[in-house]
Amino acid sequence: MITRINHIAIVVADLDEAIRSYEEGIGLTVRKRLTMPEQAVEIAFLPAGESMIELIQPITPDSGVAKYLAKRGEGLHHICLEVEDVEHTLETLAARDLQLINQAPIRAAEGRGIFLHPSAAHGVLIEFLEPYAEEA
Amino acid sequence: MITRINHIAIVVADLDEAIRSYEEGIGLTVRKRLTMPEQAVEIAFLPAGESMIELIQPITPDSGVAKYLAKRGEGLHHICLEVEDVEHTLETLAARDLQLINQAPIRAAEGRGIFLHPSAAHGVLIEFLEPYAEEA
Repeated sequence: MITRINHIAIVVADLDEAIRSYEEGIGLTVRKRLTMPEQAVEIAFLPAGESMIELIQPITPDSGVAKYLAKRGEGLHHICLEVEDVEHTLETLAARDLQLINQAPIRAAEGRGIFLHPSAAHGVLIEFLEPYAEEA
Repeated sequence: MITRINHIAIVVADLDEAIRSYEEGIGLTVRKRLTMPEQAVEIAFLPAGESMIELIQPITPDSGVAKYLAKRGEGLHHICLEVEDVEHTLETLAARDLQLINQAPIRAAEGRGIFLHPSAAHGVLIEFLEPYAEEA
């Protein structure tokens, strides 16, 4: 069911500055950068093996991510586990009575995802993601 | 230099209970469980693709991990990036004037590692790990 860690998401205040740290300091390289207006975030993906580090900057002060940043500061936000069939995962988690944040898959940058509430995973926000079919 | 995400570490209060959640709820499986007396922790590794989720429970009240748990509660603790040569990584990071937590590699469960201070990575504690040679 879980095939790999798709990404680890990190909330940052300034995406340009964070990219500089992660490229010039830590030694990763941005593969893709995009804005997700519906989630009011700008994000960058930096591959590490078969997974990615996702840097997320809120672009409005009222989004969920902006509130997280204001309350907890920069740092680790969630982990994303890749699955083959997100509908099946959703049914399985619901059948186990685990608390989901969304009751149907939402469109994320890299696929369709559902979020499990941190209370079901010892304080960790976990996304389960079915990637979009490969681009041609 | 960075070959993959080796693991993502999660601090938990009760390792047995956390293993139950991550196995029966989330769908991962423990591959290895061990106690690290020198770090006063008990840990379990659950593979996800080429990476692992590492659940960590402090076993004394005065360790760094115990204090983290008392202050911040359960949740994401650090990410571990695998490298081929940890001495080379150490020199590279030091030459970039990045703040390291240890000035020489320490023996971790899966290899020899150094820790970069969260101030150098936008709030994220990052371990760089050179794995031990494969066991026979």
